Amino acid sequence: MGGTNSEFAVVNARGEIVGRDSIPTAGHNDIYEYIARLKNGVDALLKRTDTQGRVRAIGVCAPCANRYTGCIEASTNLPWPSPIPLASLLEQAFSLPASITNDANAAAAGEMAYGRARGMKNFIMITLGTGVGSGIVCDGHLLSGTRGFAGELGHVIVDAGSERDCGCGRRGCLETYCSASGVVRTALEMLSASGDESELRDIPTESLTAKVICEAARRGDKIAGEVYDFTGRMLGRACANFAAYTDPEAFILFGGVSKAGDLIAVPMRAAMEESMLHLYKDRVEILFSSLRDAEAALLGASALAWDLSEN
Amino acid sequence: MGGTNSEFAVVNARGEIVGRDSIPTAGHNDIYEYIARLKNGVDALLKRTDTQGRVRAIGVCAPCANRYTGCIEASTNLPWPSPIPLASLLEQAFSLPASITNDANAAAAGEMAYGRARGMKNFIMITLGTGVGSGIVCDGHLLSGTRGFAGELGHVIVDAGSERDCGCGRRGCLETYCSASGVVRTALEMLSASGDESELRDIPTESLTAKVICEAARRGDKIAGEVYDFTGRMLGRACANFAAYTDPEAFILFGGVSKAGDLIAVPMRAAMEESMLHLYKDRVEILFSSLRDAEAALLGASALAWDLSEN
Repeated sequence: MGGTNSEFAVVNARGEIVGRDSIPTAGHNDIYEYIARLKNGVDALLKRTDTQGRVRAIGVCAPCANRYTGCIEASTNLPWPSPIPLASLLEQAFSLPASITNDANAAAAGEMAYGRARGMKNFIMITLGTGVGSGIVCDGHLLSGTRGFAGELGHVIVDAGSERDCGCGRRGCLETYCSASGVVRTALEMLSASGDESELRDIPTESLTAKVICEAARRGDKIAGEVYDFTGRMLGRACANFAAYTDPEAFILFGGVSKAGDLIAVPMRAAMEESMLHLYKDRVEILFSSLRDAEAALLGASALAWDLSEN
Repeated sequence: MGGTNSEFAVVNARGEIVGRDSIPTAGHNDIYEYIARLKNGVDALLKRTDTQGRVRAIGVCAPCANRYTGCIEASTNLPWPSPIPLASLLEQAFSLPASITNDANAAAAGEMAYGRARGMKNFIMITLGTGVGSGIVCDGHLLSGTRGFAGELGHVIVDAGSERDCGCGRRGCLETYCSASGVVRTALEMLSASGDESELRDIPTESLTAKVICEAARRGDKIAGEVYDFTGRMLGRACANFAAYTDPEAFILFGGVSKAGDLIAVPMRAAMEESMLHLYKDRVEILFSSLRDAEAALLGASALAWDLSEN
């Protein structure tokens, strides 16, 4: 469930997507109308895939979803007031057990079940998208914490003196630098501070996206390259600190901004190794998620649902 | 095992210290001579407490001890070259299973077994002593990580622009602000930057300790008070970030600097709540260890040894 669309899929025991569809998230009068429309969509999908009556459980990933309470708490990206008791609403609508978690934890669960992290006991999944999310796996266990809010690394303050306002109400969070909008912010700052030529100057501000900047950097645009260099370095410095928490074997990058590939990973690695404690130096890999964007959250949510159907 | 002394004790199944003694850590030609002297001391203690032949296992806490490898790795506080295969040296000397871990993890294990954290599933133990160490318990489990180096929060860089050199070779680590020597450093900086009266000015630099500064602050010395205020605020800001990793229910403070009590906890709490993400606000306690300093490490090491004797 995202701020724009809600994707849903039937996933079989081998982690294959049997069928999928989506509905818009917004445009409903209230959460009940949304659930009703979702139910229509899912029922049609079950019919189309001939899986009626064979579904074992429902797994959902949604922003600010709390696995412990089954509620979406304090989301700024969804059109309804929080908290939303999503798990129980779904259980009632579908007469099936339902589990919810946030996007970043679902991505980590999916990566561990089906992706690059298969067999890995210690890694940190970092989702660089509209926001910056994370899922921390330590000693083989996806960390939850007291109320299910472990792993909010996008809201670690990486620069206490920063002027960058974050959606969370504070300043200088990692998200303000390494999310898609953080990349655009860096570009706007650099364009205004520098006199250098850049193809980005021909693009209206409202059309400037992390992707557009990435493409310009690939074509050799100097400022666009510096934007990703800065983004990668901010991420690398943050990850040097993150290593001191759980001694991971890898950081796994996921989400739109990570599509920049080496444009972000090369400066990230350099900054990370520069600022890393000797104990972790040259020992932590930087990997890219092997799950397709469009599938990672669906598969991660399904991994949670399997846990549920076994209990 | 500390840089100065090695304390040892016989601990019974109820977590009571039956007897204890110590030897100096330094002053031996090599690690073998040290182990031989330790064995003499321990044998005498076993005789004195009438526990010969009834000891089940050995637990040790030492700086930079790695539970996974059984080695002390890269310690700057011990007089021998690293790595030191301490666990196997002890197993040979005593013909008993031996387990080692670092001070901070042992303190967390002791706190969970016998102290304030009994029954707590999510907390972070922060040891403010010669260095700054930590033990992270999340979802009921003391985090180890890939190579046993999880929880080095003293070496999270809290100020990237800092001029403060750390023993680890980098700058701006939490340890450079919140260890005993960090407190002294802050005092020296403040004394030189301020023109205010202070009883600290009458104390020769080499006699200035965190304890002396704490006593001055208690007597109302303005600069000494500001030193602890600054120390607490640095710690609080760091802990606001730490909360985003494991969603703890408490930070538990331990070690010499934490003896300042409210002098450190009050500014710590204020700074922590100021910079905390809304998800964690007003939900994380700041507690002081209930274990006596002199016993915490011994009891923590013994908690590890019980695990060992059960396997």
